[in-house]
Amino acid sequence: MTIRDNDGVRAVVWAGDRLRLLDQRRLPGVVEWIEATSAIEVADAIRDMVVRGAPAIGIAAAYGAVMAARDCGDDRLSLLAVFDQLVRARPTAVNLHWALARQRRVVDAAPQDLSGALLEEAVAIHDEDIAANRRMGALGGALIESGDVLTHCNTGSLATGGYGTALGVIRSAYGDGRIGRVYADETRPWLQGARLTAWELVQDGIPVSLLCEGAAAALLARGGISWVVVGADRIAANGDVANKIGTYGLAVLARHHGVRFMVVAPTSTVDMETPDGASIPIETRPAQELLTLAGRPVAAAGADAWNPVFDVTPAGLIDAIVTEAGIVEQPGLAGMHELMGQRA
Amino acid sequence: MTIRDNDGVRAVVWAGDRLRLLDQRRLPGVVEWIEATSAIEVADAIRDMVVRGAPAIGIAAAYGAVMAARDCGDDRLSLLAVFDQLVRARPTAVNLHWALARQRRVVDAAPQDLSGALLEEAVAIHDEDIAANRRMGALGGALIESGDVLTHCNTGSLATGGYGTALGVIRSAYGDGRIGRVYADETRPWLQGARLTAWELVQDGIPVSLLCEGAAAALLARGGISWVVVGADRIAANGDVANKIGTYGLAVLARHHGVRFMVVAPTSTVDMETPDGASIPIETRPAQELLTLAGRPVAAAGADAWNPVFDVTPAGLIDAIVTEAGIVEQPGLAGMHELMGQRA
Repeated sequence: MTIRDNDGVRAVVWAGDRLRLLDQRRLPGVVEWIEATSAIEVADAIRDMVVRGAPAIGIAAAYGAVMAARDCGDDRLSLLAVFDQLVRARPTAVNLHWALARQRRVVDAAPQDLSGALLEEAVAIHDEDIAANRRMGALGGALIESGDVLTHCNTGSLATGGYGTALGVIRSAYGDGRIGRVYADETRPWLQGARLTAWELVQDGIPVSLLCEGAAAALLARGGISWVVVGADRIAANGDVANKIGTYGLAVLARHHGVRFMVVAPTSTVDMETPDGASIPIETRPAQELLTLAGRPVAAAGADAWNPVFDVTPAGLIDAIVTEAGIVEQPGLAGMHELMGQRA
Repeated sequence: MTIRDNDGVRAVVWAGDRLRLLDQRRLPGVVEWIEATSAIEVADAIRDMVVRGAPAIGIAAAYGAVMAARDCGDDRLSLLAVFDQLVRARPTAVNLHWALARQRRVVDAAPQDLSGALLEEAVAIHDEDIAANRRMGALGGALIESGDVLTHCNTGSLATGGYGTALGVIRSAYGDGRIGRVYADETRPWLQGARLTAWELVQDGIPVSLLCEGAAAALLARGGISWVVVGADRIAANGDVANKIGTYGLAVLARHHGVRFMVVAPTSTVDMETPDGASIPIETRPAQELLTLAGRPVAAAGADAWNPVFDVTPAGLIDAIVTEAGIVEQPGLAGMHELMGQRA
């Protein structure tokens, strides 16, 4: 990767016998790596959001499977129990299931050197993700003719194996001179936009303006935004998309203002077993994440909070789903089937 | 006021020779009063958001005029210069202009005891505001048949002379048993919803759940919300409404989900001299308010931020504007003229 690629960040690194994870809870103030030396520590890191982003947690879990095999030896039952703990670390992103299903197939093939075979598969999952992001960057970037873009949460190198999904598209189109400025929702309550997306874009010299989610409608009304570009945590068979809370509202606002709406995700995020958005399990996290700020109470004692982590954007509000296997415009059941069939 | 009224909070109190202001920047962690002993200190408190909310800053400015007269003696030119400083403390809310125009008329009448006459007028402005809020509470509350409501920012006792505009409507309908739960946007970047609205509602025993702005669309899609109820900083002659950033997005989302949208504000917030929303000056505050959190940088150095404080909701997205003089349904130029004519 060169500077020219606007791609200077990696957050998941295999270190021979352990997984190094850039602690995304502490960025940008503190750049600190955490070492996970077992599959259970990987599951903890996923649940505690040391590592986040649908593709990145799939990759981390794949490396977790390597350590599980090393530690479980011939005990297949224990190994699959650890796989199960990895799968259950977070409920919404399907990439966890997908990556562990690939590792499960390796286990079922019963190779001589199981750990070695699982590592080979984990590296393949990781490399394929970066390649998919590069391909999506080119495909999705070509849809953007000019103007500024608005994005949500973090979908960059930190959320993936590297380069990013929605942020990969933005990197690509910016590199081609077809984006002026990136507007990024700060993305409450975890502030992934402010803490992570702004950090990645500043690293790569791409101009970025943060805004609070409440300002997105005014920004779209002002004009100048050609596309809203977001990632996905799970895409259902009919093209409905689960993504970070706030995405659905952006899709409604984009449609209202005649601004196009692009979802960028690898086919590992597509779950043809989930018929529609209503069938996607949505994680709700503790009220405390809203009731406190930087560790101090921000709301009066006695106040409650509703803190869903994801929402569902109906396919009808999406102009294009961009995957490494191709683009589905005006997505629906037929288009998604065609896409996933081509891939098979 | 009794407990039955759900009205236990006052934030602007005249103390004979000075104005006591509940410091709204420090709530709910610290309940601290600031004393403004001159009109300039009142202007500072308005600009620095010790006191905020369109009606409350109008009332504070009216008391500021009393101290200005006391301190300027016979120097009419200095007095009007101080009035001008008060008017320019914040640009969007028209209540500042309105309150000082009333005080200007007192000055122009050249009463024997100017300070006394200005104090009488300030007390009248304050009392009329509370009475208006009570009246709006009854009128707007009657529009809510049942269900939960969603509100934005703080429009309660802290934002007004007492009782509140949108929150007065909510207090009234809750008191009549016609609201189950209040959902309140946390309202970035100043968190007025989390810090102030939740605090007021907890004080009065009204069940409240906070949510981040990004979750509002998911809440509306889930069902159960009958009305979105908000305040206003300025209402133009055609019924367009300037209010806290995020309001316009809520109006678009409410319409998309078939949820009704109510704006509650006294006629002192209506500016028939401003033809439409595009003519309302919108305050933009420093990027630092988004780039730092609790005094610490939250975004990477080099990131910019776009931080408009208000947005404009077109009249066409509003189901009802509730004032103390009556309700305008499906507001427009004719309805607003009729309303303001009745009042005159």
